[in-house]
Amino acid sequence: MGSYLAAVRENTPLVHNITNYVTVNDCANILLAAGASPIMADDRDDAPEITSICNVLNINIGTLNQRTIDTMAVCGQKSKELGHKVVLDPVGAGASTLRTNTALAILSQVHPDVVRGNVSEIKTLYFGEGSTSGVDAADIDKVGEKNLLEAVAFARDFAKKFGCVAAITGAIDIVSDADTSIIIRNGDAMMSTVTGTGCMLSALTAAYIAASDNTLEATASAVAAMGLSGELAKSRMSALDGNSSYRNYLIDAVYNLDAAALASGAKYETR
Amino acid sequence: MGSYLAAVRENTPLVHNITNYVTVNDCANILLAAGASPIMADDRDDAPEITSICNVLNINIGTLNQRTIDTMAVCGQKSKELGHKVVLDPVGAGASTLRTNTALAILSQVHPDVVRGNVSEIKTLYFGEGSTSGVDAADIDKVGEKNLLEAVAFARDFAKKFGCVAAITGAIDIVSDADTSIIIRNGDAMMSTVTGTGCMLSALTAAYIAASDNTLEATASAVAAMGLSGELAKSRMSALDGNSSYRNYLIDAVYNLDAAALASGAKYETR
Amino acid sequence: MGSYLAAVRENTPLVHNITNYVTVNDCANILLAAGASPIMADDRDDAPEITSICNVLNINIGTLNQRTIDTMAVCGQKSKELGHKVVLDPVGAGASTLRTNTALAILSQVHPDVVRGNVSEIKTLYFGEGSTSGVDAADIDKVGEKNLLEAVAFARDFAKKFGCVAAITGAIDIVSDADTSIIIRNGDAMMSTVTGTGCMLSALTAAYIAASDNTLEATASAVAAMGLSGELAKSRMSALDGNSSYRNYLIDAVYNLDAAALASGAKYETR
Repeated sequence: MGSYLAAVRENTPLVHNITNYVTVNDCANILLAAGASPIMADDRDDAPEITSICNVLNINIGTLNQRTIDTMAVCGQKSKELGHKVVLDPVGAGASTLRTNTALAILSQVHPDVVRGNVSEIKTLYFGEGSTSGVDAADIDKVGEKNLLEAVAFARDFAKKFGCVAAITGAIDIVSDADTSIIIRNGDAMMSTVTGTGCMLSALTAAYIAASDNTLEATASAVAAMGLSGELAKSRMSALDGNSSYRNYLIDAVYNLDAAALASGAKYETR
Repeated sequence: MGSYLAAVRENTPLVHNITNYVTVNDCANILLAAGASPIMADDRDDAPEITSICNVLNINIGTLNQRTIDTMAVCGQKSKELGHKVVLDPVGAGASTLRTNTALAILSQVHPDVVRGNVSEIKTLYFGEGSTSGVDAADIDKVGEKNLLEAVAFARDFAKKFGCVAAITGAIDIVSDADTSIIIRNGDAMMSTVTGTGCMLSALTAAYIAASDNTLEATASAVAAMGLSGELAKSRMSALDGNSSYRNYLIDAVYNLDAAALASGAKYETR
Repeated sequence: MGSYLAAVRENTPLVHNITNYVTVNDCANILLAAGASPIMADDRDDAPEITSICNVLNINIGTLNQRTIDTMAVCGQKSKELGHKVVLDPVGAGASTLRTNTALAILSQVHPDVVRGNVSEIKTLYFGEGSTSGVDAADIDKVGEKNLLEAVAFARDFAKKFGCVAAITGAIDIVSDADTSIIIRNGDAMMSTVTGTGCMLSALTAAYIAASDNTLEATASAVAAMGLSGELAKSRMSALDGNSSYRNYLIDAVYNLDAAALASGAKYETR
C-alpha cells in the first residue's frame, strides 16, 4: 500500500474540493499533510475554471445548499470530460430528501469514480431510501464481524450498480469495485469523536486516486492510511487529552506517515 | 449540576445548528466532546427536514446572511411545533441593524427557550438598541461584583419579557428565568482570547437542555461546565502555549469532564 | 519593528474581515493572538454597517462567490470614505477569470492600502494575466536570492501602479511602496504546510496598519512578526508533530510575541 502514499508525495496532486463549511479547514490541512495541494471553490462562475487546472475533484454534500448544487454537477461533468477522477461524499444522504436526491443526481449525471460514506448513507443511495441518523450511521446498519460477508456483497453490488469504487467506512472498512473487495481493519474509536474524519478521508482519497491508475487499491490505501493515522494518534494521547488534541495528532500522523510505515501497519485482506 | 452533564452522555442528543462559518467546527467538536451529536444544515430546502430528525435547535446569527434568515425562522417554528427546544445566540446584536432586527424577529416568531449572549447583545434585544462593540460586550455594560444585583434583576426582566431563560455570560455569568436566577463564577480570562467560546457555549447549552426537562438548571450546568473547562484548560498551559493550544485544551476538558468533577467544581449560587 | 506590534496590543483594532470559509477561524484566532478584535460579516445588508464600526477592512477572495463580490466593493468604498485602511488578499488571482477580474475591480474601485499575495497572484494583477498554480505561487515565479533585485523592482512598480503598499510573500518577503522596499528574511518552510498562513498574515497586516500611521513599516512588521512566529513554532516541534500541531504553535507564537522579541528577531533590510 505504501506505493500509493509515495505517489501522492511525488505528484502533489491539486485537489479541487466543493465541500461543507464545517470541516473544510481540516480537509485542506490533511491534504497538505499527505503532500497534496488543496483548493476550494464553489461558485458557479469560478469553480468550473478551477476544476480545469486541478487533477481531481472531491464533492462533499455536507451543508448542501442551492447555491452550490448546480456547481457540483457542472464541475463533476467537466472533470470527467477532462479525464479527472471524481470522489463523492454523500454526507447525510438519508437524513433529508435534498441530500438523498442531490447525491443520486450526482451519481447519475457525473458517474463518480469513488463514493465514500458510512453504511447508512451508501444504503440510502442503493435502495433510494434509508435510515441515516443525522450524519452518523444508524446502529442497525453498522458493519461488524457478524454481518461482514453480507456487507462485502452489498458493497460489490453498489459498485456494480453505479460503476464506481464503493468505500464504506466504519469500525471495519470495505473498499470494493464490481470484482474485488478489500477489507481494512485499521482505525480507532476516537476517530468518531472528531467532526469530519469522514470528510477528511474523502479528500485524502481524492489525492490518492489522482496519483495512481489503480483506483481500487489507491482508495484502499487512503482508507488504511487514515485508519493507521487514527491508531498512531491514539497512541500519543495522554490523560488530559481529548478529541481536540486527538484531531491534531491525527493530521500530524498523516503528515509523518511514510510508505514503509503504511506498508507495515496496514491491516487488510482482499476477497 | 453533574446530573445534567450525565444526561447528555446518556441521551446523545442530536443538535441541529444553523450557525456561522467562523466557529462552526469548534461548535461541532465541543458537542462531540460533551457526548452529543452535531448536524449543521442551513438551506431552506434541507434544514426543516433535518430539524425534524433532531432533538434540539441552536440558532446563531454570526455571519448572518439573507440566504439563511428565512431558514432560521422556519426551522425555529418547526422545532417548537415538534416540541423541540430552541437556543438563540444573537451574535453581534447591536452591531448592525440586520442582526438586531433578525434576533428580535426570531424572539417574537420562534419564542426560543434559551437566549445566550453577552450583556451588550442581551441589552440590545431588551431595549431595542444597544452599544455592542463588534462581537464583544461594551466595557460600560460588563457585569462585575459592583453591578451584579442590577444585572440579575435585568436578566430576570429579560426572561419575563421574552418568556425564556436568559443566559448572560461574561466574567460572571447569570442564568435566569422569570423566578429564579443562578449566578455562576467559573471561567477564565483566556476564554476571551479564543474566537467562538460564546458560540461553543450556546451549542453546548442546546445539548444540555435537550437532555433535561429543567431548562433553567440545564442551562446553568452547561455554563458552569464550560467555565470549569476553561479553568482546567488554563491549568494545562505551559510557557509557550497561547490561545490556539488553549482552544484545544478547552475542548479536551469538556471531553474529559464527568459528573463528579462538574458537581465539585461548579461555583454557583441561586437567588 | 517592535513598536508596531505594541501599538496593536494597545489599540485593540477592530478588524472587519470579508473572507473565505476555509481559513476564517484561524484568521480570527490570529487576530485575537495579536491583541486585535476580529469580526466577520459578508452580507450586503449587514457588512457595510459592520465596516462603519470597525477600524480597518480585510478583503480576501478565497472561496469567492457572487453573494459577496458586491459586498466587498461596497464595504471597501465605505471604508475608504470613513478613512479606514483596506487590505486586499487576492487569493487565487490567476487561477480563474472571476478571481482575477474581481481582484482587479477591487483594486480600481477601492484603492486598497495594502495588497498582500504570493508572487504569482501579484504578477497576475500587474500584467492582467498569470500562471498561478491553484492557490500557491508557480515555481517559475518564486522569489529567491538570484532574482531578488528584479522582484524588488517589480514590487515597487506594482506599488506605483496601484498606489498601494505591495506585500509579496514567500521564502523571501518583499514589502514596498513606490519609494522604499523592505526585504524580510524571517519564516520557515513549515508555514506552507498549513492552509491559510497567507490569509492569516493578511488579517494580521490589517491589524498592524490600523494601529499605525506608517502603512509601509507596519506592513513589514506584520510580515516579520508572522515569519518570526513561524520560526518559533518550528523550534517547538517534536518528532511526532506535523502540520496540525505546527498551526497551533504558530498562533501560540503570535500570542506570546512581544515588542522586544520582534525587534531582536526581525531579519530585514531596507532599500
